[in-house]
Parts: sequence; C-alpha cells; structure tokens
Amino acid sequence: MKYFITAIAAALACQAAWAQPPDATEFQRAGTTHRLAEFPKIHKDGRVWFQFKAPAAQKVSVRIGATNKTYDMEKLADGTWNLVIPYPGPGLQYYQMTVDGLTVNDPGSETFYSNGIKSAIDVPSPGEDFYDVKPVPHGHVLQHMFYSKVTQSWRRMFIYTPPGYETNPRMRYPVLYLQHGAGEDETEWTHAGRAQFILDNLIAGNQAVPMLMVMNNGFATKPGTAPATGQAPPANRFAAFEEMLVTEVVPEVDAQFRTVADRDHRALAGLSMGGMQTFQIGPTHLDLFSYIGMFSGTPMAAAQAQVDAIAAQGAAFNDKVHVLWFGVGTAEANFLSRTKEVRAQFDKAGIRSGYYESPGTAHEFQTWRRCLHEFAPLLFRAATPATKKR
Amino acid sequence: MKYFITAIAAALACQAAWAQPPDATEFQRAGTTHRLAEFPKIHKDGRVWFQFKAPAAQKVSVRIGATNKTYDMEKLADGTWNLVIPYPGPGLQYYQMTVDGLTVNDPGSETFYSNGIKSAIDVPSPGEDFYDVKPVPHGHVLQHMFYSKVTQSWRRMFIYTPPGYETNPRMRYPVLYLQHGAGEDETEWTHAGRAQFILDNLIAGNQAVPMLMVMNNGFATKPGTAPATGQAPPANRFAAFEEMLVTEVVPEVDAQFRTVADRDHRALAGLSMGGMQTFQIGPTHLDLFSYIGMFSGTPMAAAQAQVDAIAAQGAAFNDKVHVLWFGVGTAEANFLSRTKEVRAQFDKAGIRSGYYESPGTAHEFQTWRRCLHEFAPLLFRAATPATKKR
Repeated sequence: MKYFITAIAAALACQAAWAQPPDATEFQRAGTTHRLAEFPKIHKDGRVWFQFKAPAAQKVSVRIGATNKTYDMEKLADGTWNLVIPYPGPGLQYYQMTVDGLTVNDPGSETFYSNGIKSAIDVPSPGEDFYDVKPVPHGHVLQHMFYSKVTQSWRRMFIYTPPGYETNPRMRYPVLYLQHGAGEDETEWTHAGRAQFILDNLIAGNQAVPMLMVMNNGFATKPGTAPATGQAPPANRFAAFEEMLVTEVVPEVDAQFRTVADRDHRALAGLSMGGMQTFQIGPTHLDLFSYIGMFSGTPMAAAQAQVDAIAAQGAAFNDKVHVLWFGVGTAEANFLSRTKEVRAQFDKAGIRSGYYESPGTAHEFQTWRRCLHEFAPLLFRAATPATKKR
Repeated sequence: MKYFITAIAAALACQAAWAQPPDATEFQRAGTTHRLAEFPKIHKDGRVWFQFKAPAAQKVSVRIGATNKTYDMEKLADGTWNLVIPYPGPGLQYYQMTVDGLTVNDPGSETFYSNGIKSAIDVPSPGEDFYDVKPVPHGHVLQHMFYSKVTQSWRRMFIYTPPGYETNPRMRYPVLYLQHGAGEDETEWTHAGRAQFILDNLIAGNQAVPMLMVMNNGFATKPGTAPATGQAPPANRFAAFEEMLVTEVVPEVDAQFRTVADRDHRALAGLSMGGMQTFQIGPTHLDLFSYIGMFSGTPMAAAQAQVDAIAAQGAAFNDKVHVLWFGVGTAEANFLSRTKEVRAQFDKAGIRSGYYESPGTAHEFQTWRRCLHEFAPLLFRAATPATKKR
C-alpha cells in the first residue's frame, strides 16, 4: 500500500512540474546511461529527459513502459530531438525511439534483453529501496557452464552465492531456482531484476536466510525438433526444459555447489513464462521441490488441466508443499483475474496459497522485483534449519 | 603465421563466392543472433548475411569491422534490406546499419559495449579455436561488488576463477589483473574477449597454470573532479584508477579470494588504454606486480617519460620483472611502429621484453584474444610454484 500512495503522490507532483521547462541542473544521468552519453537524464521527482540526434528525421517519438505510452519528441535547431516526460512509473522502464517509422534503441542507454534488445531506464520509486546497492555484505553472481545432454549443447547458468559462501567452506545452502519470462534470458534476473541486491539486502536484514539462486535459460530444445512456440500445448512447450532442469540442472548444482540437496531446501519460482514452467514442474516433482512461486505466471486457461490436477489432490497437497505462492501486479488485468480464479479454485479444494499484489504495476520487472522481495523471506523456514553444517 | 595464411585463403575463397547468390541452407544463425531473429547468418567460409527491416528507408548500408568497411544493402520487395558480405576478417566484428544517415544497431543481434553500444558478430577464424567453448573443465566468471573510497562509489569487478577453485578450498592461486580499453568496460574481456574460455582451454591443455583473472572498470574519477579525458597527461589521466587498483582492488581480492598474495604471483596486463595503464602502474609498483603485459597498449609519445624512466634502469630492470611483454596486430600501423620503437629503446638499454604480432588483425578483439592466449602461458612460471597449498 505504501508503494501505491507514494506513486500517486509522485505522479501528481510530476503533473504540476510537467508544464515547466526542465531545470537542467536538477536532472542527473541515469545509472543506465552510457559513459559517453549525456542523456537520458532523470529528475528525483521521476521525470525523464531524452535527447536523440537525428538531423534528417521528420518525426521522432519515444515509446516507453509496459503500456507502451508514446510521446512525440521536439526537434531542436541543431537536429537533436528533445523531450521531458512525466514520471513513467517506478522501476525499469523499457523504451525505444521511433524515427520516421523505424524503431531503434537509444544509443545513450544500456540495453536489456526483453522481447528483443531494448533501451531501458531505472526510474526511482519513492519509498522503495530494497533493490538498491547498499552498504551491506554482497554475494556474488557467477556464470557456470554445463553441457546438457537433453539439448546437446553447452549452456550457461547464472548463480547467486550469498555473502560468506567462499569464506565458510563447510556451510551448505538451500537453493532457489528462479526463471525468467518469455521475453528474457538467463541474464536478466540479475540485470533488469537486480535479484542479487534484493537478496543481499534481505539477508543483511535477517529477512531471508542465506541461499543460492540459480537462473537458467528457460528455452530448451532437443536437437532435430523445432523450438517450442507459444502455440504449443504448455506441457509440450516446456518438456525439454523440464527434463533438463530435473535431470541435469539440479544434479549439476548439487554436485558443483555446497547445497543442502533435499526437497526441503529447494524452491522453484519464475516470472511469467517462468511461473508457468514452475507451475508445471514444481507440483509434479515434489521429490525435488517444496516451495513453489509464480510471479505473474499463473497458468492460463490452456493449462487448466494442470490446475485441476492439483485441485484434485485437495488439502493433502498442503502437506507436500511448504509454500505455494502467487504474486501479480494490480495493473495486469489478465494475470490478476486469472490468479484470483485459480486461487479461488484452490481455496474451494482446501489448498492454501500465499498471495501478493504489487500496487500499480503491470507485467513488468518492478512487479517481479517486489514478488521476489516478498517471496524470498518465506523460503526455507520449515522443517529443518535452512542452512546447516555438514 | 598459420593464422595469416588461412585468413588469406579464406578471403580468396570468399571473393570467388561473392558473386553467387547465397544458398540459404549453407548459412547458420550466428551465436550472437537474437533468439527471435533469423539474421544475421554466417557461412562457414566466412560470408555474413544481413537483413534489416526498414520499408520507408531510401538507403541502408552496413559498416563493419575495425576498418569500418561499408556496404550498401539492397531493398527487397517487402521493404526488407538484404546483403551478403565477403569474409570480414576473423573474430568479433562490430557493425551497425546506417539508415538514411542515421546509425543504428541491428535488432537481430546481441549488443556489446564498444565506444558506445554496438552490434557484433563473431566470425569463425579458420584454424583458430582456442577461444571456443570446448568439452573441458570450465571455470566461473563472477561479479564482485566493492566500495571504493577513492571514487566514493560501489563498483563491480569481474573475476574468473579456474576449474577446481570451489572444490579445492585449501588451494591458493596467482592473479592476472586484466584491463579493458577506452571503448569497453569491465564486462567485455569475458564477453567480446572470451577470456574465460581462453583460460579454460589453456589450463585444460596444461599450457597455463590455474590462475584468477580480475577485471575492473578502468575509468575511475574522484568525486568533485571531472572525468579524465584522452587529452589529459597520461599520469593524471590514470591517477585515480592507479590509486584504486593499488590501494583497494589488490587488497580486496587478496582478502576475499584465495590468492598467493605476493608480487611473484601477480600479473598486470591490458588492451589499448588498459595496456597504457599497465605500463604506468606495473613498473612503478614492482612490490605488487612482476609480470607486465601490453596488448596494443604501448604508451604513445605523450608518455615517453614513462618509457625513459624504465630504460634508465638498464639491465637491472630485468631482475625485477619476470616478464615484460608486448603484443600488437600487424594491421594497426601506429601501435605496431610505436611498439617496435619502444622495444628498440629497451633493447639498447639491455632490457628484455617478450613480443608477439597478431597476423592480419588491427586494433580489435581478435588481436587481444590472441595476445591473452600467448601471454597467459608465460605467467607464474618463475621463482616459486605457481599454485601452492597453504
């Protein structure tokens, strides 16, 4: 609720400021602005200032955010296009310029992997700092290569190790397997998502137990088969990834890292497509996982059979799963209503599930950062100590 | 020499093939082609096939490689622009499209940090596979955050740990500090440079001893001072980085990682600007470093005083440095002639230096991949065992 109120207040403040010409001294280069570029810049009230050099262009606009809000830029005398936009909403906002009909990235900005390669700017969110880099102990994010027999290719996973992992060689840790969505790859939870800083801060505040986070590429295809598309039935669409995760990734992580290798110390979660993969794989592999989280990733009607299969287990399902959890943004209507529908079916069947609504955010990373921030503290609290010496 | 001959042969083969229309079945998507894109594609003979959708454009060209070779694209009936180019040279080739005068990246390609954000394609080099991902033990690349009092900011270093680092908690390792150039940042040695795979392969073949590689952002500025520019005198330009590296980075790495913390087990090297930083910092901090490598990074005439200061030490300098080493591409005339000049001065002064010429390559990552491949085997062979248990 606090997010929502501060967001509204900031938005109102911006509406008032919007009519004024920008005072250049109050804008700072964004953290994602390229070292050699002056723009984009950002105001502490949330306004964003873009410039884009295109002297020959007739029309340039900026399209930004989960709702693709579009603003025309204004051409200055030297051929630079200029624009200050009001607060576009909190957190990472993807954007692109459209130049006489051609959509291009902003050369002034870092790019992110999001349904293609896109520019993005991280807009401060009043009152929210849980994903900032703070003066706390920091874990590591490492790249680990492994050969998958399922896909018959070398693959890369990103692994977060918590502070102290290297210096406590006798300590073993639980593992959260965390998946991206259809638009991203294995890099984006620790890039757009800032998952490592969320965990650093939670662990420093004793709000979450030290854990590993393992992030794999959710696209997996067996040789000789076409890549699975959104049109394929969900079970088929994720079959190769499921096989790889269960038979290769988990054993590899347990072999190469100091994990507590049992179901009580494994969680599976994901955003959007990653949530749907979690919903398919988690409940059907309860020998491996006991915490299950869907972030804007409640399975849609096409996967109703998966929902029914869980509902049919009734309250007995509660005994098998420590946490079944759904998070969703209030501004993503489809996922919001579908999540309520699935939870209502579970309630009726006597199945408990945790729930979180991200105020005012849509199908976007600020929703998923908040989901991780709400979900991680629930993990590995049950049954046995979350970390133990062996 | 073998690189040079195969490169010429491939180039001749391409000239012959160039006039033919492309046989689509012989082109494969590049490793850097986005998951959702069909182009760019690459032929095993080195030709690259680009497509770019811009129906409203009047003229589209591709500019590629260290020499910015430019090719006009051809407009197809559906508004897609099409082009097959001959072998553009081996290794990572940065490229961009120019659309009616506006330079943009290819939405079909991964981007790299190189004097801005650029598209790039890794072109196979006949006979060279030392940077490929092979079925050998792989080390990790990890991101380590630290707070710099010099810059008064949180900074990120990338650290390569060799295979076995996690599973041999009593083993300590030597460290190569490896710097990027003025166009890159701390990410690119393990992105564009594939430094981790070069080390994996060298270590697997017993051609290099297991070592850490530590890669920092070479731009450092003290608060309240303007960022150093290329116009500043070299010593001033790199002063904040030097102070940070010497007083913060090295102690931090020694504290947080299992290093052998003495000069016999520390190397400093870098490409281009990183080489110039190495030349400034290494010889003036021989208490910390005993291996020094410049990859296309011989100091230019503006830093002649640094050259003279070493030359003045005469043969006594040989006793203080295990390896002083220069690498350069034969197709980068300025660095080639300047490197020969500096080495001639050193020869005359009785100072030994190692030397490598990368055949046919310019101021580009293929030169620096090869330099690392030649330089790393020379490291940590002197004085004491390169790794030791403590």
